Order: sequence, then structure tokens, then C-alpha cells
Amino acid sequence: MKNSTFSPTVAYLGPEGSFTHIAATHLFGSMGLVPQQTIPDCIEAVTVGHVAYAVVPLENALEGSVPMTMDYLFHGNDLFINAELSIPIEQHLLIHERQLDYVEELESIHSHPHALAQCHKYLQNHYRRVPLIQTTSTAAAAKYVQEHPEKRIAAIGNRLAAEKYNLRIAEESIHDFRTNHTRFVVLSLRKEFLELDGKSESAKTTLMIKLPDEDRPGILHQILSVFAWRRLNLSKIESRPMKTGLGHYFFIIDVLEDEQHPMMKGAFEELAALNCAVHSLGSFYTYEQQPSR
Amino acid sequence: MKNSTFSPTVAYLGPEGSFTHIAATHLFGSMGLVPQQTIPDCIEAVTVGHVAYAVVPLENALEGSVPMTMDYLFHGNDLFINAELSIPIEQHLLIHERQLDYVEELESIHSHPHALAQCHKYLQNHYRRVPLIQTTSTAAAAKYVQEHPEKRIAAIGNRLAAEKYNLRIAEESIHDFRTNHTRFVVLSLRKEFLELDGKSESAKTTLMIKLPDEDRPGILHQILSVFAWRRLNLSKIESRPMKTGLGHYFFIIDVLEDEQHPMMKGAFEELAALNCAVHSLGSFYTYEQQPSR
Repeated sequence: MKNSTFSPTVAYLGPEGSFTHIAATHLFGSMGLVPQQTIPDCIEAVTVGHVAYAVVPLENALEGSVPMTMDYLFHGNDLFINAELSIPIEQHLLIHERQLDYVEELESIHSHPHALAQCHKYLQNHYRRVPLIQTTSTAAAAKYVQEHPEKRIAAIGNRLAAEKYNLRIAEESIHDFRTNHTRFVVLSLRKEFLELDGKSESAKTTLMIKLPDEDRPGILHQILSVFAWRRLNLSKIESRPMKTGLGHYFFIIDVLEDEQHPMMKGAFEELAALNCAVHSLGSFYTYEQQPSR
Repeated sequence: MKNSTFSPTVAYLGPEGSFTHIAATHLFGSMGLVPQQTIPDCIEAVTVGHVAYAVVPLENALEGSVPMTMDYLFHGNDLFINAELSIPIEQHLLIHERQLDYVEELESIHSHPHALAQCHKYLQNHYRRVPLIQTTSTAAAAKYVQEHPEKRIAAIGNRLAAEKYNLRIAEESIHDFRTNHTRFVVLSLRKEFLELDGKSESAKTTLMIKLPDEDRPGILHQILSVFAWRRLNLSKIESRPMKTGLGHYFFIIDVLEDEQHPMMKGAFEELAALNCAVHSLGSFYTYEQQPSR
């Protein structure tokens, strides 16, 4: 997908071999990627100009969380979304080459708690009596297995971790839910379209809408009316608590239209008339990685 | 808050000293609590009858995730919500008593990656050059500090972890956002109200609404109209992808009314007439723990 002449510096939520690493590589290739320990570290790196872009999970991947990304975007950081990528979250059972014959006699299975949770049914069916050891990331689990070739142990992790730590995939796609996609966003200081091969036909706009302070029943219904009569389709809506106390919410809405569209401008005007504060995170194309099988 | 004669067995997302542990203790006291490694383990324990209740995070706490809880509730588990508890997520700098004089000369700070992220600004301002070491949980970090009294290290964690591992709070409330509440739910096999001291005045109902299969622009607006004209207030709305492929969504809606209310019954009938599949997770009271200061 990556255009060969295009290689900016990109911060991503690490460690190497994380799902965010897969997302960043898919969009930007493997050059210029800089792993960060946390989502705020990614956001800071691009805000102060250490890197041109940051790639962070927007929905709940193993290593991140929507709330954290959204909170940092909402509370005073001047970043915009330049692209969105959806990738399948696929977990595999990874094992050292020397232990391939002993996959049915494992002494322990290592992974991040969320990865262990995503493979709950598989582990119950095949390894009910095998101790599960929690690690800080799926990549850390794979590294541990690589460093202990004499042990009858396995890691749960993705294909990139298998390649990076030279492990074999003893069993493919052991996660409970087949179609488990996770969304990542590319952030930068500028409103711009990241245009690469494989982009979606139409653009999407992410809006953060803060409700008026006074309690007004039915206000959400009014807000949606602004979009509904204009045939502006919403692909996502989520309420998030403000940090000013319980019961105060803002909404995150994805609209399937470019924010420059005349209908969108009309919608913005009416939302302002309803006393809503609207902040646009920009318009962007969406990308999609297909499952491996 | 706990009623003294009421002490059922309760599974919660561990380890001991986790925020979910705080939530479970707040509602049920400290007796009969059984830590579990993952959210699916909690759900299974109550589904097969090993315990009477399970306490899991619904919003994104450190150790859990909405998507995982919601996916398991939506996909075939017959559990209902009996209560909801909101607690403040407060992170403290924890240190061994012997090292209290050296808090400004720390050699490393240990915690879960999300806790490190939540204290990003504090760490940037006070410990920019101190290495951050990731652990599998805030409790694991506290345990490590307890076991190495000779080292000039600190953990980031909550008050329960400080008590459990006999550490001092060197600095209180070092998280970036002051009013950071997280919601937990009590699940069981029965539709019932968990009635304890401190319950909310009115009940709340959580609904999962699956849209009709055919693509119908404005359907969400139609659904909200069903509630709006009845003056049924929504405190939360969230779209979640179905596991059947991208672009298919279901909605999670919290309505501030008991599902037995006549207006709610009318709403259910109209939603069915709109070809929506509605699944109620039950009505329940909400509880709230106040911040420590």
C-alpha cells in the first residue's frame, strides 16, 4: 500500500511487534517508525514536532484504549486525523522450532492478559490445565519464548511477533471471535488527507460535540435530526463523560462525508444554534487490511 | 455500604489490589471474593454457577475493556446487570518506607502501561529522566517494590495496593485528569435489583439494540425518536460493530427508567415494529464512590 517515495517519521504505540506496529507498517512501510511506550508519548512526539505522524489505536486494541486517545484529543491537543486503518486482530499460538513436536505437552502459555482473554474458548478447549502466564505485551511473550528454546512453552501473539522473534505458528487464528477488527488513526498537526493506494471511495469526518451546559432532555435526538434530514449518514456514535463531573457528556460522531461539503456546513451552523460546541478532528480516508484467510 | 448479613461469592477481575477489586469490595465487602485472570473467566464463573455474582469493568479501566465485556454479554451469555458502580480512578506514587527520604532520587518507576499513561504529565514534570518499567498490573508493580526494599524504586498504583503491600503514598493523586471515573457492573444469571445502602433514587436499564439487516439511512434517528417523544432520557449511547463484518452495528443504550415502566413497554413494541432486535440486560440501581479528597 505504501508509496515508495513517501517515508516520513512516524511514532507508534509499541513495543515492536504490537498491533499498532502492524497498522503503522501497513500505511508507512517499515522505515522511519519510532516505537513509544504509551499513547500520551505518541501524541506528545507529534505535537512537539519530533515526528510527522503518530499512529494510535482508537478502538480497544490490546495495548491501548479509546478513552485515553479520545481524552487526549479532546483536552487541548491540536491534532487532526489524517487517515483511519482497520486491521483484523488475529492471535496465533507461537512456539520455538525445537519444541514443535511437543505442542500438546505445553508447560505454560504466555501472553498479555487481553490476548489470553481473546483466546479464552480455545484455551479452555485445548489447554484447560496449562498455567497461563501474564506478560506486559504479546511481543514480550514471544521474546521470552525465543530466549528459552529449552522450555516447553508457547506465546500468544500476532504474525509480526512470530517473524520478529523467529517463532513458528503452531496454530493459526485461535481468537474467539472471527471478525475482530480494530481501528487505528494517523494523527498530525495539520488537517490533511493521507492519500495512499487502497483508500476508501468517500471521506469520513470525526466530530466531537459538547452538549449545552443546561440539562435539556431530547438534545441528542435534536442533534441527530440535524444530520438525518440532510441524509448525512453516521457510522459511529459514542457518548463520553466530560472530565468535569459525572453526568456531563460529549459525543463523538463519525459522519460519512467530507467536512467541506455544503450540507456539512449547514449542519455545523445548526449545531452552533443549538448551543453545542463542535470540534472537527478533520476529514480523512479509511483503509482496510484483509484477514490473512 | 455492604449489608452485614449479605455475603455471596463474587468473581472479580484480579489480581488482588486491582480497581475491580476496589469496586467489588465496595459493594460486597471483603468476604467471598474470588479473583479471576480475565473478563471471560469472570463471566464463565458466574455462568456455570461457581459464584453468585461477577464484577467486571464496563468502561475502560486499567485492566479491562468495554468491548470485551459487551461482546461476551451480547454473544450468547445469559447474564444480566444487577448493579452499576462508578469509582474514581486515582493513582498514587507508592514507595517502600525505607526509601521515603530518597523519593527525589528514584532509579526507576514501575507500573502497568495504562497507569504510566494516565500519569504522563506528572511523570514528565517530575521524573522526566527516570526509566519507566512496565508491569502486568499496578498490583504487580507494588508487590515488586515491597520485595525490593533496598532499591530506590517506586510503583504507581491505587490505595488498596498500597495497603496490601505495606507501601507508603509518597505523592497522592498523580493522574493527569482529576475526575476520572470508571464504571463497573455486577452480573448474575437472574434479573434482579441489588439493593444496598447508597443506591441511586431511580433505576437504569441497559439495552442492546440490533439494527435491521437492510441498510436504512436515518434508522438511528428513528430509534431515538421512540425514546425522545416519551421523555425517556438516555444517559449513554454507543455503537459497536457486530462480529459479522464491518459496517454492521448494534447499539448499547442506557435509559434512565425501569424496564417495567409502561412507557418502556411501548418503546419496546415500537422498536420491534422497526425490525430492531432488542435485548434488555435488565434494570438496576447505580452506586457511586466518592473521590478520597
